[in-house]
Amino acid sequence: MEDLTPLVNYVKKYIPLTEGEESFFISLLQVTKVKKRQYIHQPGYICQYRNYVLKGALRAFISDNNGQEHTISLAIEDWWIADPASFILREPGTFFVEAVEDSTIVQISYEAEQQLMQQYPKFERFYRVTSQLTAIHAQKRLLSNISQTAEERYETFAGRYSQLLQRFPLYIIASYLGMTREFLSKIRNRNLPPAQQTTDSSNNVN
Amino acid sequence: MEDLTPLVNYVKKYIPLTEGEESFFISLLQVTKVKKRQYIHQPGYICQYRNYVLKGALRAFISDNNGQEHTISLAIEDWWIADPASFILREPGTFFVEAVEDSTIVQISYEAEQQLMQQYPKFERFYRVTSQLTAIHAQKRLLSNISQTAEERYETFAGRYSQLLQRFPLYIIASYLGMTREFLSKIRNRNLPPAQQTTDSSNNVN
Repeated sequence: MEDLTPLVNYVKKYIPLTEGEESFFISLLQVTKVKKRQYIHQPGYICQYRNYVLKGALRAFISDNNGQEHTISLAIEDWWIADPASFILREPGTFFVEAVEDSTIVQISYEAEQQLMQQYPKFERFYRVTSQLTAIHAQKRLLSNISQTAEERYETFAGRYSQLLQRFPLYIIASYLGMTREFLSKIRNRNLPPAQQTTDSSNNVN
Repeated sequence: MEDLTPLVNYVKKYIPLTEGEESFFISLLQVTKVKKRQYIHQPGYICQYRNYVLKGALRAFISDNNGQEHTISLAIEDWWIADPASFILREPGTFFVEAVEDSTIVQISYEAEQQLMQQYPKFERFYRVTSQLTAIHAQKRLLSNISQTAEERYETFAGRYSQLLQRFPLYIIASYLGMTREFLSKIRNRNLPPAQQTTDSSNNVN
């Protein structure tokens, strides 16, 4: 059995848990290993799980009518990923959720989550607070999208999530920021001092 | 005293309320009248209230470094509006919230909301569910912003929120959709059959 301490600690950041509550919560979870490139959710299906990343990296994206991919969300260790509209509203989803690295995820089903809140209403608070943070995050990103230039969007992102730049290939970061890979390359190169630029170009295999 | 039935019914869509709970909830609210163009929240201040629209129309927007306005959210009767990041995180806000028509709003303060959830934990559920819906809405809008053309964005919006087209001036709709007013005018005219186009042009005073 995997060590679920990171996930339990995640929950405890928002609500205290007794031993009994912790055991019940853990009993509802399932640990799943996924290979790089594997999809854990696809458009047209109801999203069955919220996925907590124990190890690895995943992304959610859509493929538009022209076959172009748009990345909606990224997740590494200690983050959650799903197709939230599909998961919550129980309607067919629109996202792919794909492992970008070999990953170990902890899954909680919709039914388990409902059962958890019914049994221990304090989990309502956990989901209330985390949903509020999700809404704030989505709104900040929306704000950045409608009011910032591509260059400013990249700088905001790089300042806030420098670790994600190390974990995801450039084409995924570009599609997350709503720009082409070529344009993002140009911005990155403009922003680096000459010495680093050389290093970056030689290491950059994305 | 204003009739608060619409707001109470809004809450009852998500959680049942006893008479006692309803009275306590109502005792925490304050009704405020605002004039067209009045700001109820400004950048740099902590957002003190969530605002439920009993009558009227409001919008939240930012003004960027070039003085250009970007509309983040719109609200008419039975909708809520605030600067959620500021309200929830208790940090100085970034939005203006402005009355677009003379409006009557019902305000609940941060402290009152906390007291409400403490006294009646079932309100955790109310805020959990509504926050999840807010997050879904923000994510759908983000998706539309990064993956749709301006024309598709307008069509999605007009299909879903035709009533908002009647209530808000064109420059606000344009700034909500992330395009210039001129561009939105062009799209609208392209989409109307010739007869309506004439009518629309003659009536359109926005």
